[in-house]
Amino acid sequence: MIPRTDFPFFFPFRVRYAEVDAQGVVFNAHYLTYFDTAVTEYLRWRGYNIWQQAAVSGFDFHTVKSVVEYRAPIQFDDEIEVGVRLGSHGRSSLTWELAIFHQGDDKVLTTGEVVWVYVDMAAHKAARIPEELLTQLG
Amino acid sequence: MIPRTDFPFFFPFRVRYAEVDAQGVVFNAHYLTYFDTAVTEYLRWRGYNIWQQAAVSGFDFHTVKSVVEYRAPIQFDDEIEVGVRLGSHGRSSLTWELAIFHQGDDKVLTTGEVVWVYVDMAAHKAARIPEELLTQLG
Amino acid sequence: MIPRTDFPFFFPFRVRYAEVDAQGVVFNAHYLTYFDTAVTEYLRWRGYNIWQQAAVSGFDFHTVKSVVEYRAPIQFDDEIEVGVRLGSHGRSSLTWELAIFHQGDDKVLTTGEVVWVYVDMAAHKAARIPEELLTQLG
Amino acid sequence: MIPRTDFPFFFPFRVRYAEVDAQGVVFNAHYLTYFDTAVTEYLRWRGYNIWQQAAVSGFDFHTVKSVVEYRAPIQFDDEIEVGVRLGSHGRSSLTWELAIFHQGDDKVLTTGEVVWVYVDMAAHKAARIPEELLTQLG
Repeated sequence: MIPRTDFPFFFPFRVRYAEVDAQGVVFNAHYLTYFDTAVTEYLRWRGYNIWQQAAVSGFDFHTVKSVVEYRAPIQFDDEIEVGVRLGSHGRSSLTWELAIFHQGDDKVLTTGEVVWVYVDMAAHKAARIPEELLTQLG
Repeated sequence: MIPRTDFPFFFPFRVRYAEVDAQGVVFNAHYLTYFDTAVTEYLRWRGYNIWQQAAVSGFDFHTVKSVVEYRAPIQFDDEIEVGVRLGSHGRSSLTWELAIFHQGDDKVLTTGEVVWVYVDMAAHKAARIPEELLTQLG
Repeated sequence: MIPRTDFPFFFPFRVRYAEVDAQGVVFNAHYLTYFDTAVTEYLRWRGYNIWQQAAVSGFDFHTVKSVVEYRAPIQFDDEIEVGVRLGSHGRSSLTWELAIFHQGDDKVLTTGEVVWVYVDMAAHKAARIPEELLTQLG
Repeated sequence: MIPRTDFPFFFPFRVRYAEVDAQGVVFNAHYLTYFDTAVTEYLRWRGYNIWQQAAVSGFDFHTVKSVVEYRAPIQFDDEIEVGVRLGSHGRSSLTWELAIFHQGDDKVLTTGEVVWVYVDMAAHKAARIPEELLTQLG
């Protein structure tokens, strides 16, 4: 489990009423929306506009795998933050490592991973991630 | 309030756990997803493929107004159906009239309206709805 | 249409990728989630904890009507803010008036209303809204 | 990868417009809503009412892990079905194995797992899953 101090970036959320279920806790699917939004903000922080890049370069990232481990419940109105870190990467894939904390608190509420593959959109095939791009992302 | 017998078409739903909130009832925003899905199925029933038509014709419908009146709560696992009827229409707009019932029950749980405007996508302007299209829709 | 300067309170959002549809604009149902979240934050600003109050007092507000008028599209990553104002109120109901703007811009993108009824939860009946509560809310 | 013929139960969905993103494919988080809904229907098929049981017995299942592998895109209006199978289980946990197919087609579009832990709600601790319950579920 990655300690809080090992994340270079955090993005805050306040849990919306629309996101909790009949047990008063965040419904399991919405964690992936938090992850997706937090990675988008991480990319903005690194100066990388993923949508613009895809249009210009003809290469895009596709999500191929998501993992969420729910360790402690998160409730309505909770002020949380999602830590984002670029994890391992191969020739054409990379892994985002994620964790959710209460704001300013070290206890890990959730951990997760999202795996992306770099795709040549014209050829519909996985492609090598350029070295400069990895440097910019991570 | 429109009686059940005045709707020509119904589409069934079973309420998903993901759709209820901390009070165990359907969260207010999801009613508009039920409405949107039910109108899509109504159009399929009338032989009208809205997405295909927009691509071919250069004209599309945009939603300009939604109204929901919540009359009785709807709960997790409830088997409901959404009645759909083409209501009034003007030169370039038309109104969908909607109501939600428990399956096979006359009590009105919800009523609503969704207003669409017919748009010339190239000119970015409202356009006259062709007579044949109105006939097909309703 | 209520001008920007007539709203006492605004709550900001950045549109999430999860909230846009195949046309790249916010899906119509999510506007009600923005409204719901913005009203919650308005209440926090006025020092009113709706969930706590319901538990303590035995009285709660139920949403009985929602209206959204979509005037201009809102896109992925847009920075918007939702203006909230307490509108008219009767013996047992009150109306939230809402509008969406781009941050720092006067153009009205969306207007809306959400109507609440004050309910005696034990008796399952509408109840008179106390004068002090109206003062606190508005 | 589990072949289609190894799933004892399938639940059908038609992809809603509300579920697709700006690329016209199902947004990654909604897969977990499909999984959750399909497992609920599997339990209904086995005669197990999870909500009733929790209220009566004081024991409940909590989701502790979700995994989704996105193998091929799923688009608006696609008619899909989610295969559900009870996988491995330990003293207090069990794993749902899931896969998504187009209706009547063998190609695996998505695979996934959802891990549940059986919880003694009064003691807030994991508990042994009774033998009869495992038999009923699987």
